[in-house]
Amino acid sequence: MNIRIFLHIQYIGTNFHGWQKQPNNVATIQEVLEYAVGKIAGHKVEVVAAGRTDRGVHSLGLTAHFDTHSLRPIHAWIVGVNTYLPADICIIHAQQVKDNIHARFDAISRSYRYILSNDKVRPVILRQKVGWTFIPLDIVKMQEASQLLLGEQDFSSFRSSECQAKSPIKTMISTDVYNSNGLICFDFTASGFLHHMVRNIVGALIYVGSGKLNLEQFSHVIKARNRTFAPPTFMPDGLYLTHVEYPPQCGITNTKLPDWFWGKK
Amino acid sequence: MNIRIFLHIQYIGTNFHGWQKQPNNVATIQEVLEYAVGKIAGHKVEVVAAGRTDRGVHSLGLTAHFDTHSLRPIHAWIVGVNTYLPADICIIHAQQVKDNIHARFDAISRSYRYILSNDKVRPVILRQKVGWTFIPLDIVKMQEASQLLLGEQDFSSFRSSECQAKSPIKTMISTDVYNSNGLICFDFTASGFLHHMVRNIVGALIYVGSGKLNLEQFSHVIKARNRTFAPPTFMPDGLYLTHVEYPPQCGITNTKLPDWFWGKK
Repeated sequence: MNIRIFLHIQYIGTNFHGWQKQPNNVATIQEVLEYAVGKIAGHKVEVVAAGRTDRGVHSLGLTAHFDTHSLRPIHAWIVGVNTYLPADICIIHAQQVKDNIHARFDAISRSYRYILSNDKVRPVILRQKVGWTFIPLDIVKMQEASQLLLGEQDFSSFRSSECQAKSPIKTMISTDVYNSNGLICFDFTASGFLHHMVRNIVGALIYVGSGKLNLEQFSHVIKARNRTFAPPTFMPDGLYLTHVEYPPQCGITNTKLPDWFWGKK
Repeated sequence: MNIRIFLHIQYIGTNFHGWQKQPNNVATIQEVLEYAVGKIAGHKVEVVAAGRTDRGVHSLGLTAHFDTHSLRPIHAWIVGVNTYLPADICIIHAQQVKDNIHARFDAISRSYRYILSNDKVRPVILRQKVGWTFIPLDIVKMQEASQLLLGEQDFSSFRSSECQAKSPIKTMISTDVYNSNGLICFDFTASGFLHHMVRNIVGALIYVGSGKLNLEQFSHVIKARNRTFAPPTFMPDGLYLTHVEYPPQCGITNTKLPDWFWGKK
């Protein structure tokens, strides 16, 4: 008998080399998660995520699934697994799903939020939880530029050279740039994201906000479909995967962002 | 010529053994600060703080002063010193003051805020920035109990055995317990605080909130003036020194809490 369990995972990405297991002996989210789930399942498991986050990127709502033949009360997949996880990663929700529902292939969109401190002094309490630039930024200009990213487009200008995706074409469903409690938030929802895509877009929007690029130039950067035409990749510190969306018929619980989290709820 | 400089300091206390310099070779706020200020001053300095925070306790507004004979533009005491400080400590404000103004002796009150996550799962993103208990707490009861701490009282029941204060008598000026964005905040303003006093009070208030102590029993704990009658010390993770108050004639700038910080502004 096969049981498929769906997880919602939170983590601080700072001390992990991203999601994906690696041949060398570095800490990855997938590896510590498969170890912890395996301890409760009593057998080796493979955990499949909706997407891979990069080194240093955080998660508030990454989803993943695994298969097991071990019958456990559902809270064992939360509380039990958490006891085997390091302090900077935690399962916040678990549910059984039909065994043809797939965390990656059934996901219809992913949402990311980049949180930026635009203060004279570097962040201390929020160190590694927000990005930082002391150069004053024009939020309205960045919001306008972000609208040019909407729709189905070739995002090659924001694609890292290491990207393994088959196609650079993705559909950007919504973007928003706004002030939240003195921090600048950049929200992106898309069908999918290329490697480093959000950090590369944020890097380019910051050039717009500081006046190094105007709207027309930003539009040319998109249309160039060439990474060498775009500004550099911005630091991962302020980047959070916030949500993965599934069609209603999948029956995946919609975990909401915590109230203390900055930005729109 | 003697120049006295007043500083406002932010830090994450997690990786420091508290404020005070120690004979053994452990990292303390005072030590790294005196090193960094000394680099800009060009001579050895002693930094005097308004109070000593304990190991693991954070600061948003600790004040301190030092004396120098080196003439520097005021921003050198911020930006310059910060380049010599580790990433988890930062000067946010500096100003010259009259050389008889003393960070500790002129302070008329100190304010602390304890931030607590009262969630089923342990905090991840806010790990080491908030305390945590999964036992459901009654905020109204804790707020009522906190009022019993007001006024000039003997706080021996909340005083650690290592406390070096001359007297256990302090004046509690205000207390407040409330929900802020899904986190429980405990605010305390007093003439001064004993060693571990806030953590010991929060530990006792949590006993009230979970029903282990009623209001009358909490009142007896205060009146006992005996540490062994009180509940255990709570974890330092969620404790922030938020403000030090001076009389207006000292001319100390009132730095405000950042907008992104949880709790009342």
